[in-house]
Amino acid sequence: MGLLVQKYGGTSVGDLDRIEGVARRVGAARSAGHDVVVVVSAMSGETNRLVDLGHAANPRPARREMDVLLATGEQVTIALLALTLQRLGFAARSFTGFQARIRTDSAHTRARIIDIDRERIHRALDGGEVVVVAGFQGINDAGDITTLGRGGSDTTAVALAAALDASECEIYTDVDGVYTADPRVVLDARRLDRLTFEEMLELAGLGAKVLQIRAVEFASKYRVPLRVRSSFEEGPGTLITAEDETMEQPVISGVAATRNQAKLTVRKVPDRPGLASRILGPLAEADIEVDMIVQNISEEGLTDMTFTVNRDDYEAAIELLQTCVAGMEACEVVGDNRIAKISLVGVGMRSHSGIASHMFHTLAEESINIQMISTSEIKISVVVEEKYMELGVRALHAAFGLGESTSME
Amino acid sequence: MGLLVQKYGGTSVGDLDRIEGVARRVGAARSAGHDVVVVVSAMSGETNRLVDLGHAANPRPARREMDVLLATGEQVTIALLALTLQRLGFAARSFTGFQARIRTDSAHTRARIIDIDRERIHRALDGGEVVVVAGFQGINDAGDITTLGRGGSDTTAVALAAALDASECEIYTDVDGVYTADPRVVLDARRLDRLTFEEMLELAGLGAKVLQIRAVEFASKYRVPLRVRSSFEEGPGTLITAEDETMEQPVISGVAATRNQAKLTVRKVPDRPGLASRILGPLAEADIEVDMIVQNISEEGLTDMTFTVNRDDYEAAIELLQTCVAGMEACEVVGDNRIAKISLVGVGMRSHSGIASHMFHTLAEESINIQMISTSEIKISVVVEEKYMELGVRALHAAFGLGESTSME
Repeated sequence: MGLLVQKYGGTSVGDLDRIEGVARRVGAARSAGHDVVVVVSAMSGETNRLVDLGHAANPRPARREMDVLLATGEQVTIALLALTLQRLGFAARSFTGFQARIRTDSAHTRARIIDIDRERIHRALDGGEVVVVAGFQGINDAGDITTLGRGGSDTTAVALAAALDASECEIYTDVDGVYTADPRVVLDARRLDRLTFEEMLELAGLGAKVLQIRAVEFASKYRVPLRVRSSFEEGPGTLITAEDETMEQPVISGVAATRNQAKLTVRKVPDRPGLASRILGPLAEADIEVDMIVQNISEEGLTDMTFTVNRDDYEAAIELLQTCVAGMEACEVVGDNRIAKISLVGVGMRSHSGIASHMFHTLAEESINIQMISTSEIKISVVVEEKYMELGVRALHAAFGLGESTSME
Repeated sequence: MGLLVQKYGGTSVGDLDRIEGVARRVGAARSAGHDVVVVVSAMSGETNRLVDLGHAANPRPARREMDVLLATGEQVTIALLALTLQRLGFAARSFTGFQARIRTDSAHTRARIIDIDRERIHRALDGGEVVVVAGFQGINDAGDITTLGRGGSDTTAVALAAALDASECEIYTDVDGVYTADPRVVLDARRLDRLTFEEMLELAGLGAKVLQIRAVEFASKYRVPLRVRSSFEEGPGTLITAEDETMEQPVISGVAATRNQAKLTVRKVPDRPGLASRILGPLAEADIEVDMIVQNISEEGLTDMTFTVNRDDYEAAIELLQTCVAGMEACEVVGDNRIAKISLVGVGMRSHSGIASHMFHTLAEESINIQMISTSEIKISVVVEEKYMELGVRALHAAFGLGESTSME
């Protein structure tokens, strides 16, 4: 009967009926004897509405004022949830970011949590109250309201769980857990009972929208067990924890895919020190995130460098690169924005050889050409032509025995 | 070129276009060399929307949580106004109640301001910024968000003007000043150039919705000159200041009337000490405000007591009184909710006799029967049958020469 931190996203608190659903779930945990801290997002649609209002007031809005504006979204939800809990007979108290003293740095709209004051929250818990905290927001040392960026409520929940030494941090969302693959693509995709932080980090990095990558990093750093559950159905969800030596890990946990990718190649660059930073520097300055990077071996003192970016950044990246190589003779920039990335993730990979070759062989059997390859200790990613994405995912899911039927053998 | 505090109500900031209008007005004062502190309300309709949401979540909502909910209304407005000012090229910074350190007591939903920290606001002003403060809200010593009750933004503005020693506190609203009578009733009603705090207090108490009575009390106490102006038109408005001995006062400043009144009489009460408190005590406990009170002389040890309440409270008051007199023999409760109150207000009354008799004579000439009379040093109020209200107001407005034509003589 320890302390539970529960986090409910915007869809889960989208209207008063759903807020009542959340209150009943919280109440059940309370009645089971847990101390409960609830972290909530703004009601779905509200953050977008506020962002639009702010941009209508000023197309280049000051981040400090945007944070003042956006923070109202979660503040409305905490009051409504506290009121609903009270109606159902549970003592409850709401806390905004500044009231919970969630100290952050001053990077408005994407601040990082430095510290949380436990004392006020513990006092409320000791008084038998459910503590309802506004996610996504904090306060800097100057007393300004800050926000943590999209998905920041997950981070708030994990930070609270770490600060309060919670037994578990439950993330309630609109899916009932983490799957071996996207169930819309792979019909026999299977919910995973458990997963390691590392695997979840790779999956989150691959665009699995279930959890925010920063929240997973935070949980991993402070060893806070995370559980992804559905707000709308019962079920154990997926538990994400540190790797347990004694636990037998499956070789592969899942297949992930991201469609919105683009590939850029700078051809015939003089192969000299400083090349990569000269090419990638301007992209970083323009806040364009570069994902996979491949550089071929040099031929006649010239080399090709290829990397992937988000498809939204494709045009901007092309332009920047063309300016950048304008002074280099023979250089040219080519690109392709009809590509997708497919990745295999699993901590078991570390101790099993032959995963990569099995993966490449599987894709080859389906006549899918591999354009780029990138690997980490627990992940192998390949870039393929976009139209082969689903086919590739399904083939790999089957080849590595991830489906429901396989698991029941 | 001193410090100006300007307050804009919900209608004045009702949408982004109107907020831009406010920003232009603020900017004009800034460009004229003033330091400007702006206090804003929630966008019109927003507070009602939030109140409805809160009551839908919990029909008997905890006041603490309602304050958390309601405070978001003004927080949205301060961010939008600051963003708009910045777009127009003016440095600006928003402050919530807690950021401006507007300390209040803990009477949630109707808190009183104890103290304001000048330092942070002065620092922003010294930095050349327009300071935009959320009206209506503060923070108590426990760190809880409080609100000041409806119309509390006026009070915030006056409190800031007092704390910062502003040269004037301008209250922008949808009318262009205080009038000698309601212009919808009296066609030649005239805008008053100036008025004393006492007169404004009487007028506010009489339901003139231009200013909140607590704000006027505050302004009077701290001698903050108040100016009521229109957000939508140019014009000097009405200046409200302490009485100036050297200034010749008009005898009567205005005629006010309130329709939503009801009258209750407790008949044949034993005339003993403690009677009034026995009858009025239960009403006070039920938060029913009693306005005029008249007790007739005693006859055979029994007396009648009559008083007026807001018409909304009529049914509740009747019920309470019937319970209250249940134990007293011969007592009965009668009432009338078709009455209205007409009042003459003017500091000049003090030094002029014959005002009352002139008033009563004027009403008698129109065959209007006076049911109750109550007087203060600068006010005479009468209760009449509701249907005579407009007629009475027009007759008095003419009889005391308040109209436009008269003032031009």
